Amino acid sequence: MLLVKLGGSVVTNKNKALTPRRAALDRMADALSRIDEPLVVVHGGGSFGHYWSVKYGMHTEPARYGRDGVAAVKNSMVQLDLVVLEALHGAGMAPYAVPPAVFVGETGAPVRSRAKEVGRIARSGMVPVTYGDALLHGGGGDSYILSGDRVMGMLAAALRPRLSVFATNVDGLYSGDVEDGELIGEYVPGSSAAGASRAPDVTGGMARKVGEAERMARAGLDVFFVNGNRPRRITDAASGAAFRGTMFRGA
Amino acid sequence: MLLVKLGGSVVTNKNKALTPRRAALDRMADALSRIDEPLVVVHGGGSFGHYWSVKYGMHTEPARYGRDGVAAVKNSMVQLDLVVLEALHGAGMAPYAVPPAVFVGETGAPVRSRAKEVGRIARSGMVPVTYGDALLHGGGGDSYILSGDRVMGMLAAALRPRLSVFATNVDGLYSGDVEDGELIGEYVPGSSAAGASRAPDVTGGMARKVGEAERMARAGLDVFFVNGNRPRRITDAASGAAFRGTMFRGA
Repeated sequence: MLLVKLGGSVVTNKNKALTPRRAALDRMADALSRIDEPLVVVHGGGSFGHYWSVKYGMHTEPARYGRDGVAAVKNSMVQLDLVVLEALHGAGMAPYAVPPAVFVGETGAPVRSRAKEVGRIARSGMVPVTYGDALLHGGGGDSYILSGDRVMGMLAAALRPRLSVFATNVDGLYSGDVEDGELIGEYVPGSSAAGASRAPDVTGGMARKVGEAERMARAGLDVFFVNGNRPRRITDAASGAAFRGTMFRGA
Repeated sequence: MLLVKLGGSVVTNKNKALTPRRAALDRMADALSRIDEPLVVVHGGGSFGHYWSVKYGMHTEPARYGRDGVAAVKNSMVQLDLVVLEALHGAGMAPYAVPPAVFVGETGAPVRSRAKEVGRIARSGMVPVTYGDALLHGGGGDSYILSGDRVMGMLAAALRPRLSVFATNVDGLYSGDVEDGELIGEYVPGSSAAGASRAPDVTGGMARKVGEAERMARAGLDVFFVNGNRPRRITDAASGAAFRGTMFRGA
């Protein structure tokens, strides 16, 4: 089984509110349709959900955010999800929409039995599609942003995919700035190389991805960071032909 | 709490594939926004999900339907759901998308704890929005159509709303054809009047609604059939001002 996260910068133009990158998505969908193995797709919020969450000052920590912000983030994620679902369907796959509330309970914790169901959907030949979202928390009106990266961690723990892929708009993890640094081909969590390489470049969204990927690798799972604008690199990695990106080897 | 089903013939033009009735929906949203009570909204599939389910020959009984049909029905329901969510948001409400897979398990049975969550969302001031959908069944690749009417029955059993409303494109239940018959103001399940009035007019979609409404009324719940093109009748019924429609009184 393959678990693939299409980052917000891959599926949307992050510099322009509410703008999907349809052509990039179609190329990605075409590549994913060639993978002959159960597949689960997660996508980020980019200039849809992420845009509104910034506008309304919403974060991953539960708090009493305004209801209007929750509605705006959620509605925009339904809108972006539709674009992703239609791209996959257009490429001949059979997507199956599974919003994260299906397998994330009111407490914010994953419901393991429902997360396992996502795996059965993938094995039945359909492609479960889920995403980061705004969710209510605790039953009293608090809410929070569940990131697509956290969804990756939850699903990876329940499904133990053969390979988990984070597709972003850079080639992988760099030992320094993306501009001057070297692409790290293999990243061993906890190694001194890993420690040395982290400080300068791992900020914001990338830090969260690295955190999730490290946890996944420590749990024995292989995790691959790849450039989502080069979909061929995903199919090459899936088939074992070539790895252009950063591989976190499961410990 | 109010539980309102917006029938497929209210939210879409059933005679024209994939055509929402935006103006009717906006009028309905405006009326619903005036209800000062927790509200849960369910919508049908109309010329979206229902259209594809007919095209692919899919029914409410689980069977090995094609994956492409499941994907087509599901994607179209995400598309229609977005129209409903945006209409509610546009009218100043805070909709909260809750696809039925959140509270319907792999076996097709409602997950009571998750259905109860829908009530807490409504009481927090947001408006949970759910719908009829295509769902996988049993983990082996079978699927089925979960009707919006069945969703009404499931949520009513878990939430016990003060009033459940089925908004359709006719004024209510008729003692004969809609054209010649009399509108039945009050319908007592199991009464001889009920028996007499059923045979001629209760077919297709209406039969299923009446079946659900009878079960709900037998469980002690009030159920109201109303014309969804006259949203004022819903707010009038909600406030107790007037009832133009058919009321099933809870036994």
